[in-house]
Amino acid sequence: MTMAAEQPGYGSRSQRRHWFSRRLAIARRRLPRVLGLVRPGHLPGIELEELAGMASKPGPVHITCTDYCAEQCQVQEVTDIGAFLESHRPAWSAVRWIDVDAVTDMQVIHALAEKYNLHPLAIEDVLDLNHRPKVEQYQAEGRYQARLFLIVRMLVLDGGRLRSEQTSIFLGHNTVLTFGESAGHVWDPVRQRLQARGSRLRSNDASFLMHALIDTMIDSCFPILEHYGDRLEEVEVSVLERPSPGAIQEIHALKRELLLFRRAIWPMREVLSSLQRETHDCLSETTRTYLRDTYDQTVQIIDIVETYREVAMGLTETYMTAMSNRLNEVMKVLTIIGTIFIPLTFLAGVYGMNFRHLPELEWRWGYAAFWVVSLVMAVAMLAWFRLRRWL
Amino acid sequence: MTMAAEQPGYGSRSQRRHWFSRRLAIARRRLPRVLGLVRPGHLPGIELEELAGMASKPGPVHITCTDYCAEQCQVQEVTDIGAFLESHRPAWSAVRWIDVDAVTDMQVIHALAEKYNLHPLAIEDVLDLNHRPKVEQYQAEGRYQARLFLIVRMLVLDGGRLRSEQTSIFLGHNTVLTFGESAGHVWDPVRQRLQARGSRLRSNDASFLMHALIDTMIDSCFPILEHYGDRLEEVEVSVLERPSPGAIQEIHALKRELLLFRRAIWPMREVLSSLQRETHDCLSETTRTYLRDTYDQTVQIIDIVETYREVAMGLTETYMTAMSNRLNEVMKVLTIIGTIFIPLTFLAGVYGMNFRHLPELEWRWGYAAFWVVSLVMAVAMLAWFRLRRWL
Amino acid sequence: MTMAAEQPGYGSRSQRRHWFSRRLAIARRRLPRVLGLVRPGHLPGIELEELAGMASKPGPVHITCTDYCAEQCQVQEVTDIGAFLESHRPAWSAVRWIDVDAVTDMQVIHALAEKYNLHPLAIEDVLDLNHRPKVEQYQAEGRYQARLFLIVRMLVLDGGRLRSEQTSIFLGHNTVLTFGESAGHVWDPVRQRLQARGSRLRSNDASFLMHALIDTMIDSCFPILEHYGDRLEEVEVSVLERPSPGAIQEIHALKRELLLFRRAIWPMREVLSSLQRETHDCLSETTRTYLRDTYDQTVQIIDIVETYREVAMGLTETYMTAMSNRLNEVMKVLTIIGTIFIPLTFLAGVYGMNFRHLPELEWRWGYAAFWVVSLVMAVAMLAWFRLRRWL
Amino acid sequence: MTMAAEQPGYGSRSQRRHWFSRRLAIARRRLPRVLGLVRPGHLPGIELEELAGMASKPGPVHITCTDYCAEQCQVQEVTDIGAFLESHRPAWSAVRWIDVDAVTDMQVIHALAEKYNLHPLAIEDVLDLNHRPKVEQYQAEGRYQARLFLIVRMLVLDGGRLRSEQTSIFLGHNTVLTFGESAGHVWDPVRQRLQARGSRLRSNDASFLMHALIDTMIDSCFPILEHYGDRLEEVEVSVLERPSPGAIQEIHALKRELLLFRRAIWPMREVLSSLQRETHDCLSETTRTYLRDTYDQTVQIIDIVETYREVAMGLTETYMTAMSNRLNEVMKVLTIIGTIFIPLTFLAGVYGMNFRHLPELEWRWGYAAFWVVSLVMAVAMLAWFRLRRWL
Amino acid sequence: MTMAAEQPGYGSRSQRRHWFSRRLAIARRRLPRVLGLVRPGHLPGIELEELAGMASKPGPVHITCTDYCAEQCQVQEVTDIGAFLESHRPAWSAVRWIDVDAVTDMQVIHALAEKYNLHPLAIEDVLDLNHRPKVEQYQAEGRYQARLFLIVRMLVLDGGRLRSEQTSIFLGHNTVLTFGESAGHVWDPVRQRLQARGSRLRSNDASFLMHALIDTMIDSCFPILEHYGDRLEEVEVSVLERPSPGAIQEIHALKRELLLFRRAIWPMREVLSSLQRETHDCLSETTRTYLRDTYDQTVQIIDIVETYREVAMGLTETYMTAMSNRLNEVMKVLTIIGTIFIPLTFLAGVYGMNFRHLPELEWRWGYAAFWVVSLVMAVAMLAWFRLRRWL
Repeated sequence: MTMAAEQPGYGSRSQRRHWFSRRLAIARRRLPRVLGLVRPGHLPGIELEELAGMASKPGPVHITCTDYCAEQCQVQEVTDIGAFLESHRPAWSAVRWIDVDAVTDMQVIHALAEKYNLHPLAIEDVLDLNHRPKVEQYQAEGRYQARLFLIVRMLVLDGGRLRSEQTSIFLGHNTVLTFGESAGHVWDPVRQRLQARGSRLRSNDASFLMHALIDTMIDSCFPILEHYGDRLEEVEVSVLERPSPGAIQEIHALKRELLLFRRAIWPMREVLSSLQRETHDCLSETTRTYLRDTYDQTVQIIDIVETYREVAMGLTETYMTAMSNRLNEVMKVLTIIGTIFIPLTFLAGVYGMNFRHLPELEWRWGYAAFWVVSLVMAVAMLAWFRLRRWL
Repeated sequence: MTMAAEQPGYGSRSQRRHWFSRRLAIARRRLPRVLGLVRPGHLPGIELEELAGMASKPGPVHITCTDYCAEQCQVQEVTDIGAFLESHRPAWSAVRWIDVDAVTDMQVIHALAEKYNLHPLAIEDVLDLNHRPKVEQYQAEGRYQARLFLIVRMLVLDGGRLRSEQTSIFLGHNTVLTFGESAGHVWDPVRQRLQARGSRLRSNDASFLMHALIDTMIDSCFPILEHYGDRLEEVEVSVLERPSPGAIQEIHALKRELLLFRRAIWPMREVLSSLQRETHDCLSETTRTYLRDTYDQTVQIIDIVETYREVAMGLTETYMTAMSNRLNEVMKVLTIIGTIFIPLTFLAGVYGMNFRHLPELEWRWGYAAFWVVSLVMAVAMLAWFRLRRWL
Repeated sequence: MTMAAEQPGYGSRSQRRHWFSRRLAIARRRLPRVLGLVRPGHLPGIELEELAGMASKPGPVHITCTDYCAEQCQVQEVTDIGAFLESHRPAWSAVRWIDVDAVTDMQVIHALAEKYNLHPLAIEDVLDLNHRPKVEQYQAEGRYQARLFLIVRMLVLDGGRLRSEQTSIFLGHNTVLTFGESAGHVWDPVRQRLQARGSRLRSNDASFLMHALIDTMIDSCFPILEHYGDRLEEVEVSVLERPSPGAIQEIHALKRELLLFRRAIWPMREVLSSLQRETHDCLSETTRTYLRDTYDQTVQIIDIVETYREVAMGLTETYMTAMSNRLNEVMKVLTIIGTIFIPLTFLAGVYGMNFRHLPELEWRWGYAAFWVVSLVMAVAMLAWFRLRRWL
Repeated sequence: MTMAAEQPGYGSRSQRRHWFSRRLAIARRRLPRVLGLVRPGHLPGIELEELAGMASKPGPVHITCTDYCAEQCQVQEVTDIGAFLESHRPAWSAVRWIDVDAVTDMQVIHALAEKYNLHPLAIEDVLDLNHRPKVEQYQAEGRYQARLFLIVRMLVLDGGRLRSEQTSIFLGHNTVLTFGESAGHVWDPVRQRLQARGSRLRSNDASFLMHALIDTMIDSCFPILEHYGDRLEEVEVSVLERPSPGAIQEIHALKRELLLFRRAIWPMREVLSSLQRETHDCLSETTRTYLRDTYDQTVQIIDIVETYREVAMGLTETYMTAMSNRLNEVMKVLTIIGTIFIPLTFLAGVYGMNFRHLPELEWRWGYAAFWVVSLVMAVAMLAWFRLRRWL
Repeated sequence: MTMAAEQPGYGSRSQRRHWFSRRLAIARRRLPRVLGLVRPGHLPGIELEELAGMASKPGPVHITCTDYCAEQCQVQEVTDIGAFLESHRPAWSAVRWIDVDAVTDMQVIHALAEKYNLHPLAIEDVLDLNHRPKVEQYQAEGRYQARLFLIVRMLVLDGGRLRSEQTSIFLGHNTVLTFGESAGHVWDPVRQRLQARGSRLRSNDASFLMHALIDTMIDSCFPILEHYGDRLEEVEVSVLERPSPGAIQEIHALKRELLLFRRAIWPMREVLSSLQRETHDCLSETTRTYLRDTYDQTVQIIDIVETYREVAMGLTETYMTAMSNRLNEVMKVLTIIGTIFIPLTFLAGVYGMNFRHLPELEWRWGYAAFWVVSLVMAVAMLAWFRLRRWL
């Protein structure tokens, strides 16, 4: 992976510190916010009329419609949404999946919302790209059909930054609508499997497609976990072998990112758990069995994230203790030097005094005696230090 | 925002410290208390007679009555509460909303309590402005009508201080009574929407109005969260780059304020959760669907507050470790200087002694030898430091 | 309040330290114990016969009997318990409340236990003054009548010490028995309200009286909370502005006292919660409604205590960081002084040596050059310190 | 108590340190293990045949059989278990209690297991002396009779060491079997009460005897709690007044012992809780009422242990802060001395130089001026220290 | 055990540090990962066809088939899986247990999966060797039979490293399939017991065999716990008596390994708990009774691990405090030496000055006076230190 190229060389300390700092710079400015669509004083929910009045955002959008049944599968790029929605679905189509890969063009959303009678609250959630993953059942009520509405978030490691992209999924009896956050090709593997003759995906119903989409999202967490595991082990080695000041910044960054990771994955667990528990017309029994498997994976991911967080927390303590050890060592050296030489310096000072009557200065062996006394004192000190186990 | 103007210039350290201190001064004296209406030895609940005997507090009060149905809406300022309550409500009025924006005038409260048969316990709660958010169902019992009684608190960031204002809401079948804490215009956006022709608000029932009021309150938390997020990131940068002594005070203040924030928002979650669960005559099904959305937002807010708190907690540790690093660095410098020069000073002292018989002093190259020995010792020390990785 | 008189003057440090120490002395020896009536090898429960054989404890005891109905109320001090219990209760008396303010006289307890058929386990609990608050239902069984038995504890701040006094309450259909811990006048406000004509208390049943007693106890917590809030804010200011060594002792004392406070109030919450949930013959519906209010207050108290504890915990960290900052500052000064002067002293030592051949000493501008070199070195050091941001 | 004799004299520091160390030595090697009867690869449960083949352990064993009914009670020491089990129980005996005080003699256990049809799993639990307290219901199934099987542990403070002894109790309809861990007289108080005419114990059924046994065990915790409370208060005083290095070892030992205490008492709470909840043929209603009381005591014990642990945890923090304070103080002294004298020493060094041209040396008032300058510098430094609040 | 040979000699410090480092090296690179069979973009579950296409991994595999009933037992090594599966099971065989000790040979797995109709999701779980322990009920549905599918993990201490090996167990009515992780003889003790005439294992059903397998796995945890207990006590002694820098690394390693241990054992508890709760056709009542015992053991293991972790956590704090104590001691020595000699050195410097007019130098008793003053100052300092309890 290209990630490997980023590993610090362990060569010089300044290099490593630099490398940590670069990472830190990347880590900055990433506390979660909720500002997306909050319009204080406005009612939640966006009615069709309001939607019509909203301005589209710049950026490309691709609409892909996939019709399939056990026997065949047809993928088409939709360019004229109006014309497309007016035409009828082919009779052989067991499941129709319309994927809008970015919610920029309000006209597209308006057209789909009108055609499929989406609930105003759900429309608002689709447009608000900072939503917490959730699952909601819209029961058939008035003009609204029974639908399962999901918001899921896919974790992406983007240049070292943890980002999550929102996907909204509407699940009907034989229709799946998905709205992504930004134009891209995240669903290509699923589409390829759909096109493969005799794939298990094709012979199942719409809810099974939904499961495949969620499963793809959860799978994408594993390389990210791997990335954090590598970084954690790397800092651990650095802290235990030679603690550098940059390490604490890396630990701080790791703790924060793991916190955000957990915060992002936790509601996915809730979503999968409630999908398993609840019964809904649109959810087949087979899908439920497979969702249990995806749920298990999510539990395992959370488990590992928690383990990482505890290790990171323990690492801070270990780091502080290592620092404290170092300080002790440094101070011991100073103390040993000081304790030996400060008294000796005093002694030398004494015989540097200019008193007229300073008898020792006249002695024949005065100077030799001075050295003997000095050496005895130094040796005595060293012996005392050894006794106290400072050496 | 004006908040931006408050940002420290990062220019000089003294400036920043000053700025942190100012904030600290603001933060002081803000631990929560419960002293409002506690009258030890008194029974809880205020009967109408007792209410009549209570003195009004100074301060203005505005009473606004809004009558509306799908077709029309009429807002009137009430000045004479007695006359107003005696007159009949217009026949077209589907919902009547009486808003008292401050609970200062006891006569007003007495008149409304009498007219709408409010429960003594509820009256006391309305007057006690330090109440925890809660929802209570008063079932029809004797002269009391079935009512839903809510206490909610709106968070306000007032000059950097987190304050919460209480609003009491009585929800009847087609009547909503609201009592605010201090005169102000918090409900103006709601009133404007009511006056807009064809608004969703107008075509729904009284409980939907209650939802709109709560939603407005929850929405007001977002800029406050944003404010804390900014401050947290700012301190984080400061701690990671150059830890100043003022930062710890800011971290402490932030931790405390986030604690109070959480304490204020948490019971709102409970209120919304129980509103969703319970069934009550006055709560329509539509309102319940919309309350679910508001509940989701509250959960998200709590989520973010918890994330902020964990980051702030990790920051204290990081700060201490950074401090410890700095101390290590400082001590290393002292130790290096001391370890090199203290022995050399001793040596110089030795040859400054005035012994009559000190042979080295007479040597031709004595002085040069002294320098050579000194340099060798200094270089040896430096080499040893490098070996121990202190340099 | 007299409490205000205790506030430290912030004048001199020694004064403050003294003040903190005094408080500490007060705080000592206050860990909770359970030794009251534990008699290893004995069966729990005290039978009437055993009770008869137990020795009375010294100390006064007052027995007050209050009979009331909606129309009238009569309070009598009972001196001869035997005679009193033999006489009949007045016919008009709706509720009879017998209050024994200290459990010292075993004869009194024996007489009441016999008259009202108290359960042996309940009698033991009445005598054991270290009991955890609890509520127990004694169903009618054999000679025992259906009764609700409560142990509640009232928090008292006694000379800065948190103490809790136990009160045992027996609630029958129209009788309330209360046993206090020590002679005093805690119930005087309740008795006064009973004597007030037309009071709500008088027109309700025996369980409502029980509620009034519990409510009085809970209300007494508020000034104590206020006291801790004041102390906490005071220490907070002290820690943030100029951390003194005494502060850590005060924080420790505060944390410990808040721990005991929480420990004392927490079971009260459970008692109130189970009173609300359970149905019992003796509990009227009105009382239950009012108990909900008292329960809310207890929750609020616990909420505030938890907030205080978290603030206190954060304060320890802040204190340690402040200490660490101070140490850094102190060490920096020493290091700066040392780093500048130690090399210079060496230099001065060099030219104080008595080598015969020391050419610099003979130079014309030797001395001036020495000063120049010294100044350059000092300035270079200072520049370097500024570069590292130590100045 | 003899424990009091162990209290340190507070006289000299070395004495106290010695005392702490001795305690520490006692505390060592006491982490809980589970090695008793684990036989990897073996099936759990011990069949009668297996039991017959197991070797007895050395050590005395006493078997005491107590038969009683309301009217009389007979205690006999059993020496020949075979003969005893063959003889019939007296007709008047309402309850038979066979107490085996040590599980060393396999023949005894085999005989009882055969006679009373004990379940293989229960037999294994009886022999494994490291078992967690638990309660199990063996329903009548095949040859096994309905029985309640309990494992309880009695806490003993043995020369400062916390130890727990296991007792296994089989409760039948009118039979109680108890198996102790080591020969002793723990049940003597219960037996004495049984022999007392008219005791409550005698007039109740077998389950009431079981309650009396458990109650005796729980009561034995109180002096141990008292012991820990004393030690904790003692260390607390030591830490707050003059923190000695030995204190941290004592705190560590206390924390660990309280951890083990909690670990030992917690499952007792579960046992008592499930005894209260479950209904079983052998458990009478009266016993259940009394068990509630014992349960309350256990909750109180756990409550106090938790309080102690939190205090001990807070104490570590307080200790570290106190240490940090001390370091600050020590460093301040060094810094003050250093900062004043290091520059002065340099100055003295300057005028000790032997430059030929050193004009100040020739001045009339040079020496006096030197002292003046020195004093001014010293005073200036002191003033600066006072300004920074270091003095 | 060989483990004992690893114990450090406590001889020299360098030896111990070396020993700790070696351990650390062992501890490295062991954070849990989940990479086994994750194939992003693939559907979970492996169909028979897919399995057929997968490549076998290198390494030996042994297939052992054990048929038994109460009367007899036959063990055979299977070499040709195809031939074996085609032949019929002997009529007397009550339970057939097929054990595959390594999942390397895809053909073997394919053959068994086809024969016993294993579910695609279960097959994937068997192949993924990093799975979390779990229990799943596959109800009879279509061609799939009712089966209980378990994944359990056996903890192994491999050269000081904690490793866990996965075993997948399929339980049918009279068939047990087990798939191990690597070739080995873990089940030999169970097989031996099966071959022993009259063993309890043989007279029970297939689910009882499953219980025996799980029980063997749980039993294998005890020596590992013992190992950690030893290491913990060893570090504890080291920290409390003479804290070495290597100890913190050992504590860190221990904390991390205990974390992994807990993480590995916790889901086993869940598995056993759900096996007890759920009813399933294949689970006999007897097995359930015995599983309760195994569950109790697991709870005890978790209990001990938690205790160890808390002790280890307390140890870090104790270590830091001990370090802090040491620093204090070191600094005290430096400060005492410095405070005594720095002023004296200054004094000696003063009388080493060459001022022409320095009257003291001329005094008769000047030199003697110097020593007197020096001694008085030193003694005064020492007295002051004793006063402050530094000595």
